Parts: sequence; structure tokens; C-alpha cells
Amino acid sequence: MSAQNLAEVVAKAAKAAFEASQLIPSSERVKALCSMRAELEAAKDEILAANRKDLEAARAEVDSGRMSSALLKRLDLDKGDKWESMLQGITDVAELPDPTGKVTYASELDDGLELYRVSCPIGVLLVIFEARPEVVVNIAALAIKSGNAAILKGGKESNETTQLLSKAIQAALSKTSIPSTYIQAIQTRTEVSALLELDRYIDLVIPRGSNSLVRNIQNSTRIPVMGHADGLCSVYLDETADLGKALRIVVDSKTDYPAACNAAETLIVHESLLSTVWPAVAKALLAADVELLCDPPTLFALSSLSPPPANLSSHVYPSSPESYSTEHLSLTLSVTAAPSLAAAVQFINAHSSHHTDSIVTEDEEAAATFCRGVDSAGTFVNASTRFADGFRYGFGTEVGISTGRIHARGPVGLEGLVTYKYMLRSKGEKGHVVGEFGSGEGKKQYKHRQIVADSVPF
Amino acid sequence: MSAQNLAEVVAKAAKAAFEASQLIPSSERVKALCSMRAELEAAKDEILAANRKDLEAARAEVDSGRMSSALLKRLDLDKGDKWESMLQGITDVAELPDPTGKVTYASELDDGLELYRVSCPIGVLLVIFEARPEVVVNIAALAIKSGNAAILKGGKESNETTQLLSKAIQAALSKTSIPSTYIQAIQTRTEVSALLELDRYIDLVIPRGSNSLVRNIQNSTRIPVMGHADGLCSVYLDETADLGKALRIVVDSKTDYPAACNAAETLIVHESLLSTVWPAVAKALLAADVELLCDPPTLFALSSLSPPPANLSSHVYPSSPESYSTEHLSLTLSVTAAPSLAAAVQFINAHSSHHTDSIVTEDEEAAATFCRGVDSAGTFVNASTRFADGFRYGFGTEVGISTGRIHARGPVGLEGLVTYKYMLRSKGEKGHVVGEFGSGEGKKQYKHRQIVADSVPF
Repeated sequence: MSAQNLAEVVAKAAKAAFEASQLIPSSERVKALCSMRAELEAAKDEILAANRKDLEAARAEVDSGRMSSALLKRLDLDKGDKWESMLQGITDVAELPDPTGKVTYASELDDGLELYRVSCPIGVLLVIFEARPEVVVNIAALAIKSGNAAILKGGKESNETTQLLSKAIQAALSKTSIPSTYIQAIQTRTEVSALLELDRYIDLVIPRGSNSLVRNIQNSTRIPVMGHADGLCSVYLDETADLGKALRIVVDSKTDYPAACNAAETLIVHESLLSTVWPAVAKALLAADVELLCDPPTLFALSSLSPPPANLSSHVYPSSPESYSTEHLSLTLSVTAAPSLAAAVQFINAHSSHHTDSIVTEDEEAAATFCRGVDSAGTFVNASTRFADGFRYGFGTEVGISTGRIHARGPVGLEGLVTYKYMLRSKGEKGHVVGEFGSGEGKKQYKHRQIVADSVPF
Repeated sequence: MSAQNLAEVVAKAAKAAFEASQLIPSSERVKALCSMRAELEAAKDEILAANRKDLEAARAEVDSGRMSSALLKRLDLDKGDKWESMLQGITDVAELPDPTGKVTYASELDDGLELYRVSCPIGVLLVIFEARPEVVVNIAALAIKSGNAAILKGGKESNETTQLLSKAIQAALSKTSIPSTYIQAIQTRTEVSALLELDRYIDLVIPRGSNSLVRNIQNSTRIPVMGHADGLCSVYLDETADLGKALRIVVDSKTDYPAACNAAETLIVHESLLSTVWPAVAKALLAADVELLCDPPTLFALSSLSPPPANLSSHVYPSSPESYSTEHLSLTLSVTAAPSLAAAVQFINAHSSHHTDSIVTEDEEAAATFCRGVDSAGTFVNASTRFADGFRYGFGTEVGISTGRIHARGPVGLEGLVTYKYMLRSKGEKGHVVGEFGSGEGKKQYKHRQIVADSVPF
């Protein structure tokens, strides 16, 4: 079968499975998750053996310099508590509140005519991710919990592992009334390209991986894409910044996990701090092995110190304009001075990726101005940018972080995998028609009386 | 200036206006709306004179057969109470609750570390619509109320009118602290094409008009598009349908306003009703001058009646497969028989545009199955599809109706023009960093205590 034909078969089956699943009670989805954990436990030896095959092949690639050892590490499903925490993740998701079937608006339009807005699954998700094989299980759990069908494509390096994981997931589904084509895995990029054309079957694409993966997908589909390409976060030290807070927040934002999308890439320093707070912060960063790319004022402030900070010559460099639009993802930080809060806000809006930005300040008004003026998914006061995360926000799990403004923004929990529909129910003796309403004589008026309801009563 | 350059200037100015407006209190937006009404009232004569120029030009087009007289009617701003209701619309929107600044999730992550999810405007809207000039005012009011900047493109037939309306809107803005480039109008399709490329400045495209307009836009931009291409709604007469309800609901759904997107285009009849309810419904439709495109069972049921219904030969025709994917927008209805509720649900999911579908039934379980099984923005029981409308739903106003599943679905009120951002505030003595949290010794745990708050307390 050609990749096009295969994609069509897979997508059609996913849509049919989604539609069939709409009449199955959500308790069956929880049952599927329990069954999934059991199937994975039963197949553990087999799966880890397949994982070792992937690892061997990858090791050969690393040895010949065609793959990074970081990628190799991510591939290993038997490392530390990865296997156990993958299984625990299924149970955690199963125990989260059902995101579907919740009434978010209800109104009696007329006597006996009741309108309910009810949360419901989106439909068919296409999830594309890179090496980590446990993501298959993670995403399958989220999709099942939220009532969406899903098509999953992992990195080719983990193909052997992914195939057995999906087999276990399908075995689990076959023990429930949910169709087993509810979760399907595909193997090749050609299939992905073909699927990205099928907007009549696929409702949302979720890419999880590198910038270039996300950008390529955004550029090649009409299907809505949820995710973020860049994580270009910044910290701004305001005129009234407290030195202790500045030190802790800048160092944590940069060094806690530099490869994360919520790590800071840019530091903006109010001009009045150039000879006070800035040198102390710079020394702390240099002590943590951070390389600084500085604009002329912040660079001059450091080079004119006496004695100059240790590491100055090895770790401090002049910045270029590109420094401020680069996601370093490493122990490198771009630094610039700003003459005012307003200038800092403007700088952030022009350069950041609208992910998360933080101000360090003791001034209430500056905090409020920053939080409203910075046009990002997260605007923080005296807190590390690293807090931008679904678990830390209290969502129990995270589908990803979105820098888009449509549908879901910032860390996305299960809520991001649902939409809503309107159910309208007439209990009137003759049913309800709009011709009876209007401004003429004998016409009815809409009543719009609020109904208090958590779920649809029929 | 080239269209590309002009589009860039317009889009950049809109984004700058949006960013500047984030620090302006929402009361100023209400002031702008009042001022807008006053400016329009003051310029009434001038605007209606420009409208007459558009009308004269259009009349010449109609006379030469290049324009429909329906389009001509929509152009006339002085017809009936159109002018007055356009002005009243501004006041109505001004009086709606502010959709921004509402807290929808709040949690204390740790002592003194508070997270707020707050509704806020999306950014810059590009709204593209056809002839009706009053839409300029309508959309400008919605954008201003919700805090979004907007770029508006009307039909070329209403250019003279649109220019003066935008002039009055900009005059109103100039009397407030909101930048006057907050609402801008453009004139040519080339500018629209150039704007559709500018996803770094424009956040959402809202097309209001014909299928082909919407489809063309969806196919030519990476910017999210909110709207609907088709309104292919259906009514299903279930086995237990009450005759009186069936008659009223089918006739109202089809004939109340056949050109609307929420009018029914397809009727599905349970096989058991072919010789009972169906002939009566068909006669009522024929009496209302509706043309019926029938599949063999529904056609045979009518032709075998004795005496045959009046209009049979002039108004009843065999359907073709295309009939069931055609949005007639006129007094034509496609009809098909279904052997079961499940078959009807499947037929609707395969053929409808996921807009609004209605079941006529006396069976509680069938109602519940239909509402859950039909994958449309609106699933109705014993009610006309024509109820699918923002005003009727009680939203006060309507931005449009969305058949997408992402962000907003069904009739979209002001809520569809907002997104949210997360504000995180540390009141801790040393600020908050994530390095302090974790599972090791001496590490803190997240508390996730719910905060009850309607608005952000800072």
C-alpha cells in the first residue's frame, strides 16, 4: 500500500473509532487505562528486549558520530525509574477528573427550552514526537482519558520499542468496548506528510520536539497545530529589584535546566543597576559557568570592575543583534540594558517568543504594568521562569506548552484536549421553532434564565 | 507604496496599537464606543451621501446584470431601521460585561506564590467581509469591547461608505487614549493577500461571507481562521417522532430563513415513518413551496400516495449523491430514509458540516444518543436548527458561527475574541525559584491550594 493510501486508511479508521466512542461511557476509558498498565507490565520483558535492539542500533550511530549521546540516553526505557514512572503516569492520568461532560454554560431560552454547553473531546489527534519512547504511552493515556482518538508517530530511532508499546496499548483497548483503532502508531515520515493533508479526518496536530520539527509541521498543514516552536524567555531586573531575589531568580531561571523551553535566554537590566545589582548577578552566573553575551553598557559595567570578575575573558563576550532572538538551550545568556520599564516591556514584546517572562521588582505598580504589558503566555513577578509547567501549575499532567493564542495558551493540561458542543432540548408540548419569537404581536421573547448544572440532565 | 509594503505598515501599526492598549483600563474602551456612536451620528448625512454613491454604482452593475439585486439591498445603509439599529448595536456591545480581566483559574502553588489565569484579548484581528457596510461598525465595536486591534476589509461595492465609517471610528478613537491605528480599514484584495502572510503581526482571521470566501482564506494562510465555510444542517425524524412537532420543526428549520447557515438542508426520515409522518411533513413543505430532492424510498412513499400531493410533479425530484453535500440556501431540501437511529447518526457525521443537527423524538434514550453521537457544534432535540445563533443563545452579540473545534465552536460571542495568560506572583521574602522544590531532602512540595478570585488582586 502506498503511504498515501495507508495514511487514508489509518485516518479514516481513527475518525470512525472516535465517532463510535462517543456513545461509550467515560468509565470505559478509565478501564482502558488500567488495562493498558496491566498489558505493559505483562509485556515488560519483551518491550525492554525490543528497546535494547533500538539502543544497540543507536549506539552504532553514536560511535560513528551520526547521533548524539544525549539522544541515546533519551531512548533507554530501562534507565533509572523510567519504566516505573511511565506506568505510574498512566495511573495518575486515570485518576484525574474527567475533562468531558462538564457544563460550562446553561440557559433556559424559553419555558421548556434548555441550552447546555458541554465539554467534549476534539476528535482525532495526530501526535508527532522524537526519540523518547515513553511518550507513546504518555500521549496514549492523555488521549484515552480525554476521549480523543490518536495517531502517534515516534522517532525512527525508537521504532522497535514503539511498535511493542502500541501493540500492548491496542491489546488493552481490545479488552474494552473502545475500538482498537482508537490509538494507532505509524512509522514513516512519508505517512506523516500524507496525514497532514487529511484535514477532513484529523482535527489537531500536536508536535513535541525540536524547533525545526514544529516549524516544518506548521508550514505544511491546514490542520490546527498546538505547541510551541521557540521558548525564548527573559528575566527583567527592574529599578527597584531586590539583590537577593535577583540573584536567586536569574540563576534558577538560567541554570536549573538550561535545555528546557522555560529556561531564561535573555536578561534585561535596568540602567540604574549597572554598577550595583548587575555585577553581583553576573558574578553569580559566571560562578555557575554561564557564558554571557552582553550589549555595550552591560559589557562595560563588567570590564570596568576592579578587580575584574574571574572568567571575564573566557565567559563574557559582546552580543550581536541575533543573540536576542536565539534560544541557547545551554549555559549561555544574552544580556542587555534598558532605560526604563516601558523600554523593557517593548524589548520583550519584540524579541521574546511570548512564552514566559519574569520581572524582579519591589514596586507594585511596575509589577502590574509588566504583567499586563508583556504579551506572553506567562508573566511572572519575583519568580523563576522555570515555574511555567503543567505539573507546577497544578494540572496533574501536561500535554505541552502552547505559545499560540488560540484554544490553549501556556502549559496545557487535559483541558487543552477538549472542546465543547451545544445541546438544546425542548420539553415543550409542541417542540420549539424560532418563527414564534420576534418583535411583532403575539410573538414570544427569549428568556435567557441561567440554569445551574454541572452535567447535562439527559 | 506596494500592497506588500502597505500591508506591513498597517499590520505593524495594528500590533503596536494592540500592545500599547494593554496598559489602558477597559473603561477607556467603553468610552471609545460611546464616542464612536456620537461621531457616526454627527457624520450621518455625509455617510449616507457616500452610501448613495455606492448604491448608484451598484445599481448600474445590477442593470447590466453583473450584480444581484440581493447584494444591492444589503448595501443600502438607509433602508428601514438599519442605521438606527447599527448605532443601537454599539450601545448594546458597550453595555455587555467586559470579557477581559476575568480569573478562570487561581491556585497558590506555595506559601506566597500565587498563580492566576486571566482572560485577555487575542491581539490583532483581520476581519474580511462582503457588501454589508454596517458590519464595519459592528466588528469595530466587538474588537474595541474585547480589547483587540482590528484590520477590516469590506466588499469593494461598499468602499465609499466603508471609508467614511472608518474615518468616524478613527475620529472617535482619537478622543481617547487608545491609538487611532487600533481600527484600520483596507481597500484591496491584494492587501488582504499580503496581510494573510503576516502571521507575526496578525493573530486571528475572521472571514464573514460566502463559502468560497472562507475556503479561499483557509487555504492561503497559516494564521488561525475562525468561521464556517458550510452550514449543512439536518433534521432527523426518529421512529417515535410526534407528528405535530415534526411538522413545525421541519418547516421552521427549512423555511424561516432559507439563506441562513442554520437553515436545514437535509431531512432524514426513519423508515417506519415513510407512510405516516413523512407524507404529512412532505405536504406541509410542498405547501410552503419547498422543492424536495428525495432518495428512492422517500420518493416512492410520495408517488404512491392516492391522491398524489399537489405540486408532486413540479416540486419533487429524485436526489443524487451530491444532494446530501449541497448547501441549498434556498427553498430546496434533500430527503433520505434511514433504517435506524444509528444509521441516521452515521449519515449526519459523514455528510453534515458539523454545524447544527436536530432530532425529533419522544424517546429519552434516542435523544441522549443523538446529542452525544452526532459530532456537531449543536445537537438539538425537538427544536428548530434555526436556534443556533448567538443572540438566541443569550450571548448578547455574535462574532460568527464556528464549525471548527479549536478555540470556539458554534455561535461565538465576545468570549471567542479573548484568550488568557498566566500571571504568577511571588510575595515570598526571597522570591521563588524551582530549585527549592523536588523529592530530595529539604525540598519543598507544591501546595496547589485553590484561590477564590474574580479578578487579579494586583
